[in-house]
Amino acid sequence: MAAIIIPKTLKGFRDFLPEAEIARKELVDKAEACFRAYGFVPIDTPALEYAEILLGKGGGETEKQIYRFADNGGRDVALRFDLTVPFARFLAAHRLELPIPFKRYHIAKVWRGENTQAGRYREFSQCDFDIVGTDGLAADFEILLVMREALLAIAGGPVTIKINHRGLFNRFLDTLGVGKQAAEVLRVVDKQAKAGRAETLRALVSVVGEEKAEAICAFAGTRGSFEETLAAMTAAAGGPCPESERLAQLYHSMRGMGIEKNFVLDPSITRGLDYYTGIVFESFLNERPRLGSVCSGGRYDNLVGLYSREPLSGVGASIGIDRLIAGLESLGRIEERRSYAQVGIVIINEKDMWACHGLARAFRQSGVMCEVLPEIAGSRDSKRLVKQYVLAEKMGLEYVLVPGDEPLDDRVDLRYIPDRSTANNISFELAVQICKYPRLRETYLKRG
Amino acid sequence: MAAIIIPKTLKGFRDFLPEAEIARKELVDKAEACFRAYGFVPIDTPALEYAEILLGKGGGETEKQIYRFADNGGRDVALRFDLTVPFARFLAAHRLELPIPFKRYHIAKVWRGENTQAGRYREFSQCDFDIVGTDGLAADFEILLVMREALLAIAGGPVTIKINHRGLFNRFLDTLGVGKQAAEVLRVVDKQAKAGRAETLRALVSVVGEEKAEAICAFAGTRGSFEETLAAMTAAAGGPCPESERLAQLYHSMRGMGIEKNFVLDPSITRGLDYYTGIVFESFLNERPRLGSVCSGGRYDNLVGLYSREPLSGVGASIGIDRLIAGLESLGRIEERRSYAQVGIVIINEKDMWACHGLARAFRQSGVMCEVLPEIAGSRDSKRLVKQYVLAEKMGLEYVLVPGDEPLDDRVDLRYIPDRSTANNISFELAVQICKYPRLRETYLKRG
Repeated sequence: MAAIIIPKTLKGFRDFLPEAEIARKELVDKAEACFRAYGFVPIDTPALEYAEILLGKGGGETEKQIYRFADNGGRDVALRFDLTVPFARFLAAHRLELPIPFKRYHIAKVWRGENTQAGRYREFSQCDFDIVGTDGLAADFEILLVMREALLAIAGGPVTIKINHRGLFNRFLDTLGVGKQAAEVLRVVDKQAKAGRAETLRALVSVVGEEKAEAICAFAGTRGSFEETLAAMTAAAGGPCPESERLAQLYHSMRGMGIEKNFVLDPSITRGLDYYTGIVFESFLNERPRLGSVCSGGRYDNLVGLYSREPLSGVGASIGIDRLIAGLESLGRIEERRSYAQVGIVIINEKDMWACHGLARAFRQSGVMCEVLPEIAGSRDSKRLVKQYVLAEKMGLEYVLVPGDEPLDDRVDLRYIPDRSTANNISFELAVQICKYPRLRETYLKRG
Repeated sequence: MAAIIIPKTLKGFRDFLPEAEIARKELVDKAEACFRAYGFVPIDTPALEYAEILLGKGGGETEKQIYRFADNGGRDVALRFDLTVPFARFLAAHRLELPIPFKRYHIAKVWRGENTQAGRYREFSQCDFDIVGTDGLAADFEILLVMREALLAIAGGPVTIKINHRGLFNRFLDTLGVGKQAAEVLRVVDKQAKAGRAETLRALVSVVGEEKAEAICAFAGTRGSFEETLAAMTAAAGGPCPESERLAQLYHSMRGMGIEKNFVLDPSITRGLDYYTGIVFESFLNERPRLGSVCSGGRYDNLVGLYSREPLSGVGASIGIDRLIAGLESLGRIEERRSYAQVGIVIINEKDMWACHGLARAFRQSGVMCEVLPEIAGSRDSKRLVKQYVLAEKMGLEYVLVPGDEPLDDRVDLRYIPDRSTANNISFELAVQICKYPRLRETYLKRG
């Protein structure tokens, strides 16, 4: 006998069984419905690109994590590790074909050969949405609106979006006389939620000295209402400036729409990545704050610099699909759905197969998703019929229909029959008996 | 100035711009709606697997085309080149967790480093659906039903599904005394549509000699109604047998449902792949027969043999998404849709931004997808307003709303306002002026 190949997957890679894939699709569908309603359009880019394109200036963590190899033609290629870099390349290549400003979303898998501990995967979905080609406040506001709406739809519970403005933080650092160390300071502050205040202070001291480190920690620690925090930040940054005006106008607009309660101005939100230049934001499920941010992003000056001499600014965010699913699972908010069909029909005799499918068609035409169980039961008193009930339960069906010749009795539940006459019209000579299957199964097992 | 990286993609790989991606998604949505209505459930598997898993016994074309490399951990890995092999591995790994028979669909990208001539791509979508774990006729019938319904929904025009039974063809070859050459004969016959009858005959002669080659060509050339063809095939195969019975029962069931006109029994359909053992089928758009098959498949004895000692039979099909899109494009049936939104709202002043978004929200709540154009026009007489009309046209929006203080006039088209009072309630102090934008643009340009 030939040797068997063990059917294993690579470390960090997952199979999605129906229940998990249905949950993932439902989440994605909710996000997509929201993007589309706001006029965002989908794009897709290749999974595989020239390594040079994806690595850009290269170096650092990315280079170590990327799946890179020589293809059969000897090209130096790699799997995309995020959707931002391919989007930048896409914009540089197709700029003239697109309406600018351009509002796109992109939901796709990406690959990183990173350490798989702590629930990290080497293949995972990203869900990005951006508005590029405008540095206007209206785009910032719209991204925040879409984030809020998509997250509320997905989470089914309260969410908080924490925002900050890197430009305002930088002004504060200038006022403090440490503007040149801004990039490093922002990276340290970004890690405060994980590292804790003491460790953050220690790290800052080594960058800017003790006194200024204290001032930075105090600035990042500013709390209060949006207006109070903004006033304190503005004062610390040397008084009113375009960035503080922008935040004030954002708050005015949130209040106008009555959505301000979902937003917090939090100067400790800085985002680690260097390319952000304006507002930055992170989002949290109020019921699971420790989960970390489930949607993050910000405004960038120029996304396409590596591939084009004409800059293109924008603002965008990325929903952490896997993290959200983990959070919703822990909240018991992922519906355990194993099938889209509600009703299953059993075929008793092969010659009546078409009639069962005719009945199923009638159900579908009435908007009820309907499964015909693919095995022939043979008779109404067979073990194979019992097997169909077991199968229906495993599939997660709610009802099983067994064509029968017994009179309809009190076990019958007609609410899924859209029109009794439809059922009769399909030329079954036998009556159609509809039973909520666990009850019927019990009855059957008692009889059997 | 730093050098620019040319933003190119790899040969055989494509960017999907919004219009193409929207078209692809619409097609996929139609197929998915059909699968779900029939009780098929989605799964997903990793893009990257152990090369050993994907190559199985290996050799041949696959090995040359596959993207295979050593990952950072030195593992011998490869990108999936179809969805069938990963499905077999998936079934062997998860059999006990699944309801058997199991009805799944899987829509995902696959990668093959093949020659890119003739519209072939190195990255393309596959859309597979299968019923495994039963060798029953009901599963064969259901796959054909789903194929028909999905293709009719997608094509928006007539389709023909050609079916055959490999077992019956093999019986005929046994009767002819050339059963041992069956695999080779079927492969030659499979290519007849491309190679032509003369070339096919020549190839057959070299396998089975002149006389028998003529007989095989005659058998494969049998034409007529389903029943006539079946009778002729049955006679040539030595009389009634389980395979001919099965085809007869299929036809009876098609007639029962009144769908027989979409099906043709065609003994020249054999499918090249070795693993098919029962019915096989190919599908064609009646208006574009030369496009080739847009959905093909068949029944197989055992899918999981490489990974499990317990066989699992099934039946399945694969929709050729790229080919279908090409066919529908040539038929002018791909709607040129560049946005999901119908209505665009222009922001005149930043301080009213929230009100424009409030109006957009009211539209969305009424089911109208609505875009707020992300740039501030500044005034109703600005060049930037004209730019918004141009942008709206490029985005494919149907209507643009410009908040204004002029009285409503005969240019106003109210049909997209679900409820005038909603528009008034959002506290615009100015009236909301709704114009079908090309007309308004003309007016503006005349005035300007």
